[in-house]
Amino acid sequence: MENEVTVGIVGAGNVACHLVRGLQKAGVKIALVYSRTIANAQKLAACSANTIATGSLDFTAAPPADVYLMAVPDQVLPQLAEQAIFPTQSIVAHTSGTQPLEVLSLPRAGGSFGVFYPLQTFSKEKEVDWQKVPLCLEASSPEAEQKLWFLAQKLSQQVVAMPGEKRRQLHLAAVFACNFTNHLLGVAQEVLKAADLPLNLLEPLVQETVSKAFEHPPFAVQTGPAQRGDVSTIQAHLQLLNALPQYQDLYQTLTDSIQTTAGLDPFSGE
Amino acid sequence: MENEVTVGIVGAGNVACHLVRGLQKAGVKIALVYSRTIANAQKLAACSANTIATGSLDFTAAPPADVYLMAVPDQVLPQLAEQAIFPTQSIVAHTSGTQPLEVLSLPRAGGSFGVFYPLQTFSKEKEVDWQKVPLCLEASSPEAEQKLWFLAQKLSQQVVAMPGEKRRQLHLAAVFACNFTNHLLGVAQEVLKAADLPLNLLEPLVQETVSKAFEHPPFAVQTGPAQRGDVSTIQAHLQLLNALPQYQDLYQTLTDSIQTTAGLDPFSGE
Repeated sequence: MENEVTVGIVGAGNVACHLVRGLQKAGVKIALVYSRTIANAQKLAACSANTIATGSLDFTAAPPADVYLMAVPDQVLPQLAEQAIFPTQSIVAHTSGTQPLEVLSLPRAGGSFGVFYPLQTFSKEKEVDWQKVPLCLEASSPEAEQKLWFLAQKLSQQVVAMPGEKRRQLHLAAVFACNFTNHLLGVAQEVLKAADLPLNLLEPLVQETVSKAFEHPPFAVQTGPAQRGDVSTIQAHLQLLNALPQYQDLYQTLTDSIQTTAGLDPFSGE
Repeated sequence: MENEVTVGIVGAGNVACHLVRGLQKAGVKIALVYSRTIANAQKLAACSANTIATGSLDFTAAPPADVYLMAVPDQVLPQLAEQAIFPTQSIVAHTSGTQPLEVLSLPRAGGSFGVFYPLQTFSKEKEVDWQKVPLCLEASSPEAEQKLWFLAQKLSQQVVAMPGEKRRQLHLAAVFACNFTNHLLGVAQEVLKAADLPLNLLEPLVQETVSKAFEHPPFAVQTGPAQRGDVSTIQAHLQLLNALPQYQDLYQTLTDSIQTTAGLDPFSGE
């Protein structure tokens, strides 16, 4: 295996942006950044030395890369992959948690392709510690996997080979643990706002909840009114939520789900 | 104000247990620990020097304390408060997020009483950093509040005076941010288990989600299929959940709630 790998980044959104910063920090050469909007590509390419920006999907006309990472929204990935022309010897990998590996098989007929899925939530404002981001890999051949693995290890300490079916289940778990959790934290802040209470009051509680969840099975350490079947507190909470009625159904559904999990009958009124 | 305050602990559950450890560490004298089950009181009293264990609710017959903290379940608090006989000059405070201050007004007719609510989730297995636990206080008189404040500041850096109505709203917010979040983390782990994937894979993602939620309004940084109206991924997730059908309703309700919050119509199929 060679000691160098050159990367091309397709996309200029949050994931692309963090990939460029992470790869740059890891000393990986970035040949080019593509964006439909050339100004975005230029802005991102400027973060890294000797990286060109391009608005053309014919990558055979640009400085070649060994691996092209397609960090674009799921919805546009299939079409973009079909339109792009990559150098024959390169590997093309997408970064999606849900799109199958095979979405690249037709566009890359005869070539190598793979998946390079970083399990993290990326936002413009916040630096990411790539060393701790699990990278889930899948590839069309052992050689392609080996090369993606080589690249991934430069970024992260946690690299995992993962077939598509498991990756989709992981993505589902991530929706519960990240997207849904974030929504609940938003609702909690709405409740605090309505009560004119400082939002950071909950921070130690949430930190403790999360750190406990990775030390003990969460269902085993579940607490609160739903878990102990405390009907009068549940009723009082639903009544308080008359001020934010759009969250009453959510409260009830979560309460029912906790009680079902605990083996309590949510409809017995006990 | 004097420089010493002696505490009596009523109860021997998780909160009582952590209170004893925290007060002991803060150098506060603990006169006694009460539990209906005297063996539990003895076990807890043994953690602290010169602390006696008692199974009797006549506290006038025991070494006196300035403040009695009733760390008992909500359901038994009113009855226990009525049965107990406290020294006339003492302050009696409960530690509940939902019970009103007034639950102590009849039992303490003519005496002082208050609320000493620690906003944290306590479990046997895990040490708590009391310095970071918000303590929410309420009292029947300014003098009683002053004494509770004096005690609270020995434990924590974050002491807040808070009327009952706000405390109840804070408790509701905590149910969303802690109890409900814990349940979602449990569901995420079930999904991982079903896929035979390691549970700690999600830890960096969850840590990032939480740390982001206290830097930016969670609704403003919401991501995921619900937020972007990605119907095909939502459908795929609901189908994956055929293996864990008890969580399909939860997935749908949370998805709808995110879409309503985002101003998307959850029923338009867009």
